[in-house]
Amino acid sequence: MDLNKEVIIKTVKNKSNSKFRNFPMVPRVVFGSGSFSQLGDILLPMRKSSDAPMIFLIDDVFENSPLVNRVPLLFNDQIIFISADEEPKTAQVDILVTKIKTDFQEAPSGIIGIGGGTLLDLSKAVAILLNNNGLASEYQGYDLVSKPAIYHVGIPTISGTGAEVSRTTVLLGPEKKLGINSDFTTFDQVLLDPDLTVGVASEQWFYTGMDCFIHCIESLNGTYLNAFSQSYGEKSLELCKEVFLGVLSPAESRDKLMMASWHGGMSIAYSQVGVAHAMSYGLSYVLGTKHGIGNCLVFQHLHEFYPEGVELFHKMMQHNNISLPVGICKDITEDQMNKMIKVSMHMVPLWENALGNNWRNTITPSKLRSIYNKI
Amino acid sequence: MDLNKEVIIKTVKNKSNSKFRNFPMVPRVVFGSGSFSQLGDILLPMRKSSDAPMIFLIDDVFENSPLVNRVPLLFNDQIIFISADEEPKTAQVDILVTKIKTDFQEAPSGIIGIGGGTLLDLSKAVAILLNNNGLASEYQGYDLVSKPAIYHVGIPTISGTGAEVSRTTVLLGPEKKLGINSDFTTFDQVLLDPDLTVGVASEQWFYTGMDCFIHCIESLNGTYLNAFSQSYGEKSLELCKEVFLGVLSPAESRDKLMMASWHGGMSIAYSQVGVAHAMSYGLSYVLGTKHGIGNCLVFQHLHEFYPEGVELFHKMMQHNNISLPVGICKDITEDQMNKMIKVSMHMVPLWENALGNNWRNTITPSKLRSIYNKI
Repeated sequence: MDLNKEVIIKTVKNKSNSKFRNFPMVPRVVFGSGSFSQLGDILLPMRKSSDAPMIFLIDDVFENSPLVNRVPLLFNDQIIFISADEEPKTAQVDILVTKIKTDFQEAPSGIIGIGGGTLLDLSKAVAILLNNNGLASEYQGYDLVSKPAIYHVGIPTISGTGAEVSRTTVLLGPEKKLGINSDFTTFDQVLLDPDLTVGVASEQWFYTGMDCFIHCIESLNGTYLNAFSQSYGEKSLELCKEVFLGVLSPAESRDKLMMASWHGGMSIAYSQVGVAHAMSYGLSYVLGTKHGIGNCLVFQHLHEFYPEGVELFHKMMQHNNISLPVGICKDITEDQMNKMIKVSMHMVPLWENALGNNWRNTITPSKLRSIYNKI
Repeated sequence: MDLNKEVIIKTVKNKSNSKFRNFPMVPRVVFGSGSFSQLGDILLPMRKSSDAPMIFLIDDVFENSPLVNRVPLLFNDQIIFISADEEPKTAQVDILVTKIKTDFQEAPSGIIGIGGGTLLDLSKAVAILLNNNGLASEYQGYDLVSKPAIYHVGIPTISGTGAEVSRTTVLLGPEKKLGINSDFTTFDQVLLDPDLTVGVASEQWFYTGMDCFIHCIESLNGTYLNAFSQSYGEKSLELCKEVFLGVLSPAESRDKLMMASWHGGMSIAYSQVGVAHAMSYGLSYVLGTKHGIGNCLVFQHLHEFYPEGVELFHKMMQHNNISLPVGICKDITEDQMNKMIKVSMHMVPLWENALGNNWRNTITPSKLRSIYNKI
């Protein structure tokens, strides 16, 4: 899960006025190996007319794969391939929306995102902006979306981010990296077909899975937890252990990591992340480190905060033959280091969740510097 | 969970043509002790006009309780107290719908069910029938509802049935006991406030909790299971163990059993029950035994089918000082016994789920008779 300061402030606000979040769940979900074949049947009743297309936003790694032939195209439906090499941007959303509005006289019947967190987040944002005037960056924030998004469907092809169940879509805008957080962001339909994760490279599989694992460790050890989030977080963690430490068949691993991601995403309803995410955010902001690996780079050095979790993490690395890159922070400038520390220190609610109100007794600039220097 | 033959046939059909159910989840959920206080804020934006009331269907055990004063009445809202002593009936739904249509010129803004499975099921059915012409009995079956229900909210005051998340409402009709199974049945909003279960009598707490526990044992040991339902079922089972075998504070128990019921209900998406429900159905049909206790009466004697589950069940009984009534089947007539056996044997898919396609090698009339005779 991608995080930002505003998310956190919002959470604390919600907490402080004793409001319980009214969490929007995905209203429709299909699960099963091979269930992608059902997509045509699912979309059919949602088609408004033969002129109102379904637009499929698909990770471009699938451009020449057999999956493309299984996309249930009808009428003037369109496939748009998108690279997930970089994080999704508000400008990218605006271009897509303009293209779709230009290409078609009628508004689309739906947007179907097929890919990892980047594709899922882009699809959510495009669906919102097709029904709400203006630029994507104008909606970065909290509950700024006034009209429902058009029908949008999420189909993950890698497991761990939880983007398939979240009510946000994190975008890099001209001024800030911030989610479009709204009740209209959540997908109308999710299709979970573990077979779609066949062929994910083992390192990417691990790093994205660790996004889920680390999130669970942080939220389960945090001070914000309640029984709702705890139950989802515990189940997600248990599934992560089975996948990354157990002896499962590849099919079982795919099934279980897809469910781990699902439950992990649900657990954010009333929880918060912690030290790894706070520090990873600094790393990502200054060095552009991607979210999954950034969390791993930090988390490996957090024994004192999450002793059991970090021990498990090292076992998982070993069990899955993963070697993290080293020397990431070796050649950074003093300015960069200070910036990383500053960005990280600003993540107040993450620190509060992790260490309580007196977190500043433990977390000092020199403390963070010493950890960054290990990375 | 209440069961019936048709449910089962449907499941098998779904299975045989390799279709994966597109499961409707509750689109909004609030969890938290004290969250009932938020109900007014939740309902406010759903009010269509000052003439379109919110109708609160409330278990009549709350008639003189402080809870009533906390119901956020506005304008011409109405509270209707309903006894949960008997199972909900289609005729009861029809009377409620007629009353509401007579009492108000405008259609209600919403129906809010506050109570156990009976109240939740009645609320779902009334919400459907207010928007669909005819009698409730005409909609008993599968996907016979053509128009969306009016906005309906479920607020459980006892944990275990899973009615808060299911897509059915089981009703006793003039000709059959059968659910109104439809995508419009699922609640639009659920509010989970564990404090509302304070004061539930300990035996009722146990029997309703066992509805959840036994369902989990049966589905987790069944042949229909997939990874989606397994993950929910496992978490639900784990929470049941904590509640009924652990040493928790009363508040923790309430939190955890409410989540167990939630996850247990979610686990039905792609699973099925088994021997206890098949036999309990016979008991219920012939003797009118209520669902929760009926399952317990059967399950205690099912060592050979669920050795670990039954062992756990006996430990739970002991741990919670529960004594089941004895001699239930002592004085039944030969006709009654034959009827029970016949009803139970008809639950083909439950037997298939429990024992595989060759279940008839194990389950014979004399086998069932020997088990019923122990009850």
